[in-house]
Amino acid sequence: MIKARVTVTLKNGVLDPQGKAIEGALGALGFDGVGQVRQGKVFDLEVEGTDKAKAESDLKAMCEKLLANTVIEKYTISIA
Amino acid sequence: MIKARVTVTLKNGVLDPQGKAIEGALGALGFDGVGQVRQGKVFDLEVEGTDKAKAESDLKAMCEKLLANTVIEKYTISIA
Repeated sequence: MIKARVTVTLKNGVLDPQGKAIEGALGALGFDGVGQVRQGKVFDLEVEGTDKAKAESDLKAMCEKLLANTVIEKYTISIA
Repeated sequence: MIKARVTVTLKNGVLDPQGKAIEGALGALGFDGVGQVRQGKVFDLEVEGTDKAKAESDLKAMCEKLLANTVIEKYTISIA
């Protein structure tokens, strides 16, 4: 069993209204000096088998097909 | 300017219907051998200043107050 973490974040230049809202909320809570905030998603997956190279290529396919919208998002895969 | 990444994930034992849905969708797409999937959130923040210890304590306060629901979620802070 291989454990992997996939992190999906917006590409640079893509507007992030959710991040902007968090920025505003942090300011309203009194946290000064917070610059840009951008929100993304993280997926913790368990993949059967022990072949890390195969797991990585499978995870890449999962990202392309389902986990990330590659028009506006980029992803990183890290395998434990 | 300090760049930090906050990762918020569900605590163990907390049900994750969103993760379950992704698990089902991956199976339907033909990805066999995918075990548990759990989804979390990631925040990329810029904090002013150069004092990493202060930034970390500020970020911890932000997590406790806004970014994470500590009843059901845990968070990790990593500072670049």
